Amino acid sequence: MCEANVYIRRDGQDQLILESVDKLVPEPGQVSMINIFGQQKTIKARILELALVDHKIILEDL
Amino acid sequence: MCEANVYIRRDGQDQLILESVDKLVPEPGQVSMINIFGQQKTIKARILELALVDHKIILEDL
Repeated sequence: MCEANVYIRRDGQDQLILESVDKLVPEPGQVSMINIFGQQKTIKARILELALVDHKIILEDL
Repeated sequence: MCEANVYIRRDGQDQLILESVDKLVPEPGQVSMINIFGQQKTIKARILELALVDHKIILEDL
């Protein structure tokens, strides 16, 4: 499967927010995501980078 | 492999920008990406949504 794990980078450390994310939508002031298990999260952050071969999406706090 | 194809949505149609993208970085006013073949593109757009199980990243023009 080709979903990715979403992390937030804080003080140089990547903390796992939600694993196996399928859909992710950046919105003004927040990022919404849903994983393949139907779990949803919305957090006040922006996308820093995607590294898909590593299955990683890195966010940072707003 | 779990890279994704990057499309830009124009008039409801998704046009392929770059396939097999590994890394993608949203920056102010643009999105930079590089694929697994080393091809790079930077375009004036923002991320509309990620649909990773479908291997799709959708952008829209700024």
